[in-house]
Amino acid sequence: MNRASILKYMKEEQSNCVFCKILAGTLPVSLVYEDDEVAVFPPLQPVNPGHLLIIPKQHAPYMKDLDSGTLSYMMEIAQRLNGAIRQSKYPCEGVNLFLADGEAAQQEVFHLHLHIYPRYPADGFGFKYDPSRHFIHMERSELNSIAQEIKKNLS
Amino acid sequence: MNRASILKYMKEEQSNCVFCKILAGTLPVSLVYEDDEVAVFPPLQPVNPGHLLIIPKQHAPYMKDLDSGTLSYMMEIAQRLNGAIRQSKYPCEGVNLFLADGEAAQQEVFHLHLHIYPRYPADGFGFKYDPSRHFIHMERSELNSIAQEIKKNLS
Repeated sequence: MNRASILKYMKEEQSNCVFCKILAGTLPVSLVYEDDEVAVFPPLQPVNPGHLLIIPKQHAPYMKDLDSGTLSYMMEIAQRLNGAIRQSKYPCEGVNLFLADGEAAQQEVFHLHLHIYPRYPADGFGFKYDPSRHFIHMERSELNSIAQEIKKNLS
Repeated sequence: MNRASILKYMKEEQSNCVFCKILAGTLPVSLVYEDDEVAVFPPLQPVNPGHLLIIPKQHAPYMKDLDSGTLSYMMEIAQRLNGAIRQSKYPCEGVNLFLADGEAAQQEVFHLHLHIYPRYPADGFGFKYDPSRHFIHMERSELNSIAQEIKKNLS
């Protein structure tokens, strides 16, 4: 193993996982919901009050590592939490779901988690992007070629 | 009905919905995947090549309007697409999922859709936020109070 592989291994390994420590009761948590498959709690540095993380109980670093049943169940739980956040006292006129799969996608804890956070008009939150390379209008021929390329890789 | 209600109605109504027009075949689309429940295609202005939208066939403006079975199935499809995007020729070392529920959450088409887009290091994409009000470190007592407030609204 080279240095990069060792660091990658350490990062993804269950014994170093803060979410597994929370689930094992060795780190504190403010639980919102828990069942056999998932747990829900606010992160230490929420986007804003109401921001919650939905995590599977099974240690799965990435999306590919989680069984599709649990992954899709996380979405069902997100739907229920959406209603609860909207009914809570925190400012909320909209809700975002966000999931980061991989360090390049801004994943910081390598135990898969689905973010849900409330939004309201002019809350100052949103996307940072480079208009010279993101959200460029594409011609139909380019879109067809993208669709074809991904379609052929879909198992 | 006042002006605001009329505008809201028009925005959410199926007969004005571009995604329903795509599904009906009256607007062009570059289909990646389709079955009885969902369709997948790239948006006209993708974050980057590989960006896809997963939409339910049923017209559901918001998350609350979609049955939980179809919503969670969208996540299962996202997992399969994640693998396909990673295997495609487009730069991809990570994948983000994003869903906007409500105008305040940056929803622009009022037919629910789940975004999936590839990411790579230093791609210039990310979150724009105000460090004076977002991602503020919270004390355990505040986190407990947030968890309590949302828990009590969870049906």
